[in-house]
Amino acid sequence: VRAEVISIGTELLLGHIVDTNKGHISRKMAEIGIDVLRHSTVGDNPKRLSALLRRSLLRSDIVFTIGGLGPTVDDITVETVSKTLSRKLVFNKQIAKQVRSYFKRRRYKFPEHSLRQAYVPEGAICPKNDVGTAPGLIIPLKDKVLICLPGPPVELVPIVQRDIIPYIKKHFKATEFIKSHSIRLAGIPEATVNTRVKDLLKLSGSTTLGIYARLGEVELKITSKAKSEKEYKKNVKKIVTKIRKRLSSFIYGTDDESLEEAVGILLKRNKKTLAIAESCTGGLISDRITNVSGSSKYFKMGVIAYSNKVKTSILGVPTEILKKHGAVSKECALSMAKGIKKIANADIGISVTGIAGPGGGTKKKPVGLVYITLVIDKKNISKKYLFSGKRNDIKILTSQLALNLIRTNLING
Amino acid sequence: VRAEVISIGTELLLGHIVDTNKGHISRKMAEIGIDVLRHSTVGDNPKRLSALLRRSLLRSDIVFTIGGLGPTVDDITVETVSKTLSRKLVFNKQIAKQVRSYFKRRRYKFPEHSLRQAYVPEGAICPKNDVGTAPGLIIPLKDKVLICLPGPPVELVPIVQRDIIPYIKKHFKATEFIKSHSIRLAGIPEATVNTRVKDLLKLSGSTTLGIYARLGEVELKITSKAKSEKEYKKNVKKIVTKIRKRLSSFIYGTDDESLEEAVGILLKRNKKTLAIAESCTGGLISDRITNVSGSSKYFKMGVIAYSNKVKTSILGVPTEILKKHGAVSKECALSMAKGIKKIANADIGISVTGIAGPGGGTKKKPVGLVYITLVIDKKNISKKYLFSGKRNDIKILTSQLALNLIRTNLING
Repeated sequence: VRAEVISIGTELLLGHIVDTNKGHISRKMAEIGIDVLRHSTVGDNPKRLSALLRRSLLRSDIVFTIGGLGPTVDDITVETVSKTLSRKLVFNKQIAKQVRSYFKRRRYKFPEHSLRQAYVPEGAICPKNDVGTAPGLIIPLKDKVLICLPGPPVELVPIVQRDIIPYIKKHFKATEFIKSHSIRLAGIPEATVNTRVKDLLKLSGSTTLGIYARLGEVELKITSKAKSEKEYKKNVKKIVTKIRKRLSSFIYGTDDESLEEAVGILLKRNKKTLAIAESCTGGLISDRITNVSGSSKYFKMGVIAYSNKVKTSILGVPTEILKKHGAVSKECALSMAKGIKKIANADIGISVTGIAGPGGGTKKKPVGLVYITLVIDKKNISKKYLFSGKRNDIKILTSQLALNLIRTNLING
Repeated sequence: VRAEVISIGTELLLGHIVDTNKGHISRKMAEIGIDVLRHSTVGDNPKRLSALLRRSLLRSDIVFTIGGLGPTVDDITVETVSKTLSRKLVFNKQIAKQVRSYFKRRRYKFPEHSLRQAYVPEGAICPKNDVGTAPGLIIPLKDKVLICLPGPPVELVPIVQRDIIPYIKKHFKATEFIKSHSIRLAGIPEATVNTRVKDLLKLSGSTTLGIYARLGEVELKITSKAKSEKEYKKNVKKIVTKIRKRLSSFIYGTDDESLEEAVGILLKRNKKTLAIAESCTGGLISDRITNVSGSSKYFKMGVIAYSNKVKTSILGVPTEILKKHGAVSKECALSMAKGIKKIANADIGISVTGIAGPGGGTKKKPVGLVYITLVIDKKNISKKYLFSGKRNDIKILTSQLALNLIRTNLING
């Protein structure tokens, strides 16, 4: 079964919007065994869209169009589809009702031109749109199907899940599906991961391994083509076992799990509370920790001590340390971590101090120099790093390594 | 002059990577007056790529391919291009030297198969790649051109800027270019902006206006086709003037400016310092403020008071307030703002307290209830909001409104 996806919209061709819809549909199709072989984008141009639709419906079994379903004159999808398929537009009462109620619920005046959206090609099935006014369209064509979806991801995603996947599963028989499983690592550079799994990266055939690096984080993605869930799991397990053996201590999670979630789970499991003193990260570590729902259970407080005065008055860093070693020093980091642990009455105190740049660096203490200290019970661990990159890169990298420091100590502790 | 862009890579069709290259090239082409009329993506499949290349070179003057230039067997671009154009591959000494030196500089052992990258179609111009080993290719074809670029954005972006744009400017005469100018607004919902600029959104012709909404922020993008920079500026100014007249107090910046940058500029201009007490935003506001380089000039400190105890012990919120009104209350927000202003000895104190969810809501105080208080000199302003959305949406919305509250008060004060 071959599928392809067409996005419609001049704003995409101008590069004003990043298209995440195609990727979403592709992943969903792969999971149910549908091969997406082509992605295309055309502008709001009926002639070019029509030509592309004709060609796509010749070579593919399932054709998706995304966008151009709105009520304005720029929205050309329905009319172009109707002409290309020679199917007249018919008035759909149900959609008209939905569109009216959409405006009524919002207490907006009803714009009469919105009724345009109630005209759909004859024979179309119209999945409901709970978020916007544009209905989805499923247009069966003998043994093929044309599926038209609205462009905003918040509207498209639920329609795909609720209506499109069941429809395709019912009408198309896929023998194999493709799914991916990710292993997420922190505290290890991409090059080192690469060396350790080199042989696995060269795999070809039904199961392959890909490596994706982000700031302070590496993702190993196992993609497998299989005929059944059982076969898929077996394929994946073989590689996962090898990866775990070689890289176990760096693995913090799988699939969509974030490092802050992994830290949260460990804090809860170990019944430990956390307090954070940040300088150069400016609140990012606390922000990430509190992105996890339920984090109020273990996160007690954070202090962003951007000035020396705050380091002294709030965190109790002795002025002698600041004078002798400076704010960006191992000594200051230790004092900050002890200070925040104490005032928050927490089990764990962590601190970061450094120079995020672009200004503020000196020859002795360059931009990118960062100290991280973890105080847990009576133990303390200090780390020194020299990062390169822009201000935000340094903030993100520092937050990654700070979170990972908490993680590794909770696992080993 | 018509252009189109082809991305090559099965990982794109599987939705494993988001393609930002097409947008980048499209924006750059628009700026020099080249219309990009199509985007396509195919997998690592020579047959499908070849068919698409043939069609693209018939209908477009400039064809870009992105990706598939690496040294592995999956990298099919060069060979497919060579076959499709019937141009034999020739060994390019210069590239071979670059590839060798790439590995030498990194002290990696030289992988002999990397020399594959030194074979390029006859007649190709090869822009240097300063980041990776894959050279770019400019293949002139009578009055057309095929341009092959490496997939990683860090490699593609500099080649486009340094080599591709000058080449195209020299060989293709564009009479008009397209450029955009954005006006950014905060503190006003999209629907209201929409109502106020309705007439401008309907403009057609050489200058158009688009509206893009993000969490707590609206972007108005003016896109204009013009023959000269002077004409472009005149076109844009006409609309900008109208927008400013109608929405002036909500406009915080233009183009890529962020709300935290706008706040930073105002703080510096007014010579005011800032301290932040956060509860439900968990550090996000401080994180955003400190994303701006030079923020240490005006940002004194932040406290993330996630527990009642911290609100009392650090920020000095009286226990009676917490007992009588609760932590999520106007009274607590005011006390937090006053407290942080005092302990930081800052000119401005701002506080947020609320329920980000998904847990923690009650009938009286539901998820999404947020109080924001700003204390500036002897004045204080309190706001109450009821947001809907997920935990992170509520955090982002709250941070937007808090930053905007600082902004509007600095402008008016």
